[in-house]
Amino acid sequence: MKSNDPPYASLTAHMKEVGLLGGAAVVLGWDQEVLMPPKGVAYRAEQLAQLARMTHEMSTDPRVGDWLSACEDQGFDDPLSEEAVNVRELRRDYDRSTKLPAELVAEQARTASMSKAAWAEARQASDFERFRPWLEKTIDLQRRIADAYGYPSDGEPWDALAEGYEPGCTAAQVEAVFTPLRERLARLTAELMDVGVAPEPVLDRLTLPVEQQEKFVRFVAGELGFDFDAGRLDRSTHPFCGGAHQTDVRMTTRFHDDLLGDALGSTMHETGHAIYAQNTPDRGVGLPMSEPVSLSIHESQSRLWENQVGRSEAFWRWCFPKLAGFFGDAVAGLDQAAVYRGMNRVQPSLIRVEADEATYNLHIMIRFELERRLIRGELTPAGLPAAWNDLYQQTLGLDVPDDARGCLQDIHWSMGAFGYFPTYTLGNLYAAQFFEQASADLPGLEAQFAQGDFKPLRTWLTEKIHTHAMRYRSAELCEHVTGKPLSADPLMRHLESKLKPIYGV
Amino acid sequence: MKSNDPPYASLTAHMKEVGLLGGAAVVLGWDQEVLMPPKGVAYRAEQLAQLARMTHEMSTDPRVGDWLSACEDQGFDDPLSEEAVNVRELRRDYDRSTKLPAELVAEQARTASMSKAAWAEARQASDFERFRPWLEKTIDLQRRIADAYGYPSDGEPWDALAEGYEPGCTAAQVEAVFTPLRERLARLTAELMDVGVAPEPVLDRLTLPVEQQEKFVRFVAGELGFDFDAGRLDRSTHPFCGGAHQTDVRMTTRFHDDLLGDALGSTMHETGHAIYAQNTPDRGVGLPMSEPVSLSIHESQSRLWENQVGRSEAFWRWCFPKLAGFFGDAVAGLDQAAVYRGMNRVQPSLIRVEADEATYNLHIMIRFELERRLIRGELTPAGLPAAWNDLYQQTLGLDVPDDARGCLQDIHWSMGAFGYFPTYTLGNLYAAQFFEQASADLPGLEAQFAQGDFKPLRTWLTEKIHTHAMRYRSAELCEHVTGKPLSADPLMRHLESKLKPIYGV
Repeated sequence: MKSNDPPYASLTAHMKEVGLLGGAAVVLGWDQEVLMPPKGVAYRAEQLAQLARMTHEMSTDPRVGDWLSACEDQGFDDPLSEEAVNVRELRRDYDRSTKLPAELVAEQARTASMSKAAWAEARQASDFERFRPWLEKTIDLQRRIADAYGYPSDGEPWDALAEGYEPGCTAAQVEAVFTPLRERLARLTAELMDVGVAPEPVLDRLTLPVEQQEKFVRFVAGELGFDFDAGRLDRSTHPFCGGAHQTDVRMTTRFHDDLLGDALGSTMHETGHAIYAQNTPDRGVGLPMSEPVSLSIHESQSRLWENQVGRSEAFWRWCFPKLAGFFGDAVAGLDQAAVYRGMNRVQPSLIRVEADEATYNLHIMIRFELERRLIRGELTPAGLPAAWNDLYQQTLGLDVPDDARGCLQDIHWSMGAFGYFPTYTLGNLYAAQFFEQASADLPGLEAQFAQGDFKPLRTWLTEKIHTHAMRYRSAELCEHVTGKPLSADPLMRHLESKLKPIYGV
Repeated sequence: MKSNDPPYASLTAHMKEVGLLGGAAVVLGWDQEVLMPPKGVAYRAEQLAQLARMTHEMSTDPRVGDWLSACEDQGFDDPLSEEAVNVRELRRDYDRSTKLPAELVAEQARTASMSKAAWAEARQASDFERFRPWLEKTIDLQRRIADAYGYPSDGEPWDALAEGYEPGCTAAQVEAVFTPLRERLARLTAELMDVGVAPEPVLDRLTLPVEQQEKFVRFVAGELGFDFDAGRLDRSTHPFCGGAHQTDVRMTTRFHDDLLGDALGSTMHETGHAIYAQNTPDRGVGLPMSEPVSLSIHESQSRLWENQVGRSEAFWRWCFPKLAGFFGDAVAGLDQAAVYRGMNRVQPSLIRVEADEATYNLHIMIRFELERRLIRGELTPAGLPAAWNDLYQQTLGLDVPDDARGCLQDIHWSMGAFGYFPTYTLGNLYAAQFFEQASADLPGLEAQFAQGDFKPLRTWLTEKIHTHAMRYRSAELCEHVTGKPLSADPLMRHLESKLKPIYGV
C-alpha cells in the first residue's frame, strides 16, 4: 500500500480535519488554564463539549472503518513503514472510540471543564467538600466509560482507562513493577534518612523576585533547546506542556519567591516534554506518525532533562556561574557544591510536584493504589481524604495537615484522568535506562553539560526516540534503543550512585 | 410561533452548535494576534480555514432553510419578538451564506491568516512589496466573493461586501453622506488651522513607563464599567475588541512610552466596544438576539466613550487628579485645562488610529475611495501606495514618508475586510446623536462624569441600545432611540461647540 492509494489518501485527509479540530480544543484548554477570565468557564465548557462531540463523531465516522479495512486488505510490505504504523494506530483508536457513545464523550468533556474549575477553587480554599460532588460525578462517568471500552475477564475497569494513556498497561502489571521498586526505594530512603543530616535545599532558602526567576528559567529552557519561536512559556497553577502542533508548543511553570529550585526543576521538566513535542517530525496533522508514543515515553523525556541532566554535578558546573547574572548579590553567598547537593536532597514530603527524585515514586504508588480502589468502587470519594492521609502516614511517615496539601493537590482526577499517574514512574524508569544508553553512545556527555552544550544529547534523543513517533510501542522502543527490556536497575543505579556519596553512605 | 415549537427549537439548537464552533475560531484569532509563537502561523491558518469551512457547512445545511421556512409559515404575532427577530436575521444570513461556495470561504480564511502575518512583517519593515502579492490575492478573492453574493444592477461589487458589516449599506449612500460631511469637516479644520497655534498634546509629551501606563488604563477601563472577571485587556499591534461570549470579552490596546494619550484613547475606545459586548443579553449562543446590531452601532459605542466622554472637560475634572497616583512626579508639572485642551488638539496627521476627532473622518473617506476603486478594478494593488499618498496630500496636505505610515498602517484589507472602514464614520455620527439624546434624558450627566460616576450613562446605553441586540437595524434603532433619522448635525454641533472655544474661534 502506498501513501497516494485512494483509501489511504481519504483516510489521512479526514484525520487531518479531525486533528485540526482537536487542535482547536487544545488551544482552548490551554487558554482556560492560563488566562481565561473566570466568568467564561461555563461557556468554555460548552465549547469544549461541542468540540469533543464533533471530533468523536468524525473519528467514529463509519467511513474511517471502511478506509482502514481497505488499507488492511491491501497489506503492507513493511509493517514499520509510515503508512503501516498510521493504519495500525488509527485502527486501535477507531476500535476504541467506536465503543464510546458520543453523549458520554460530550458529558465527560463538559464535566471536566466545570470540575477543573471547582477543583481549583476547592484547592485554593483547601475545602474538599466543594470538589467532592464533581469527583463523584467524574468517577461515575469514568466507570461508565470503562464499561463501554470493556476489559478482559482477568482484568479490571482501571485497565480500560489506563489503555488510553499507556497502551497495554494493566493494574496487575503496574502492581508487579511497583511492589519490588517500592521496597528498593524505601530501603534507599531509609538508609539516607538514617544519616540524620540532609543537604539544605539552598536555592529554596533564598527570597528572589519572581520576575528575575522567570527570566532565569526562560534562559535555561532556551539553552536546553526549547524553540521560543515555536512555543511559549507561561504561568499556571499546575505546570503542564501542551500545544496543538510542533510549531506551537506551550508549556507553563509556576513561581514562588522562595522556591527557585522548584521553578527551575518544573521548567526543565516541561522543557523535556516540549523538546519532544517540537522535534517529533510533522508527517501530517492528525496522524500517529506525527505523534509521541505514549505518556510514559513523554515522561521519560521530561524526567531525563529534569533529573539526569538538571540534578547532575556537571549541569551545575555550567549553571551555577550563571546565577549571579540573574540574581546579583542575592546569590553571592552560595556555594556550587552546596547547590548541587541541595538539588539532590531527599526528604519525604507532602507535595508530589515538589518531591525529590527518590520519594517521588512513592507519591505515585499512593495515587495508583487510591485510584484503583476508587474505580473499583472499594473507596468512595467521601472517604478519599482519610484514605489519602492514612497512606501518606504509612508510606512516607507524614501527617497531612489539610486537603490542599493532600488529596486536592493534583489536577488529574478533576479532568477524569484515571490510569495516568503510573506513567510518571514508568517514565522515570525509561529515563534512567535511556540516559545510561546515551552516556554509553556519547562519550564526554557530562563534560558537554559542564560547557553548556546540550545539543549532542538533544540530537541523540531526537534520532533515537522523537523521530520514530508512534512507530514502536513503549516497551519495543526501549528494546530498540537500549537493547534490553525495561528494568528498574538503571533507575536504582542512577539514584544510588549519586545519592550515596552525597549523603556519605 | 413559540420558542418551544419543534422547527424553532431545532433551529436554535443547531445555531448554538454553529455559534460554539465559531466562538472557537474567535479565541484562536485572538490568540494569533496577542500571543501565538511566530512559527505557528501556517498551522493556525489551516485550523482557521477548517473551522470556517465547518461553520459555513453547518450554517448552509439545507435543514436550516427548511426550519426557517417552517417557522416563517407559522408566522409571528409580533414581528419584533425574540423569535421573529431571530428567524428574520437567520434567514438573511442563510440566504447570504448559501450563495458562497464552501471552498471560497475556506480559501479566504486560509489566505487571511497568512496575509495578516505578511502584513505585520511588511509594516514592520515598511516594505509594501512583501504584502502586495497577498493583497492581490485577497482582492481577487473578494471580487469573487462579491460576484457570488451578487448585487443590484444599479449597485457595485463593493456593496455586496459592505452588506456583511452594515446591512443595507451601499457605496452610493456612503458617498451621499460623506460628500457634504467632508466639506463641513474640511471647513472646520481649516478654520481651526487658521488660528496658527494648536493646543499641545501634553500627555503625549511625557515619557512614562509602559507598565505604569498599563496600570492606569486598566484602572480607567474598570471605572467605566469593564468587567475584568468577564474579559481581558492585553496588548497587540493593532488594538481590537473580540471575544466569543458575553462572559469572555477580550480587548487589546498598545503602548509607547511617550504616548499616554494614545493608550488612554485606544483603551476607552475598546472599552466602549467591550461594554456593549458584555451587556448584550445572552438569549442563546449563536442567535441574533444575543448579538450586536451592526459594526456602525458597535462603533458608536466605542466612539461615545472615547470622544463624547473621554475628551470632555467633565471627564478630565475626575481623571486629572488620578494621574499623580499612577505616575507620581512625572506628571507634577501638568495643568488640568492644558491636558483637556491637548486631548482635543486637531492636527492633520498620517496615522488613522492616532488621528483627532475631526480629521479622523477624512482618513476614513480616503480609505473608502481607495477600496471602492480597488474592488472596482480601477486601481491595482501595485498602484495603491502612490494613490494613497496622492490622497493624503490632497485631503490632509501631508507627504507620506513611508508605507508603514501610509497604506500599510491598517490591518483591515489584509484580512479581506473591504466595506468595513465607512462604519467607523457612521459610528461617529451615531455616537454624537445618541449622546445628545442621553444628555437630554439624563440631566446632570457631565456632573456625574466629574464625580467618576459613569453608571447612569452605561445603564442608559444598555437599556436603550445593548438590550435590543439585533431587534432593530442601525437606522431604525437610531430613530427608536433618538426619534430622528441619522444626521450629521449632532456630530458637527459636538465638534464645533467644543473645538471652537478651545481654539478661540
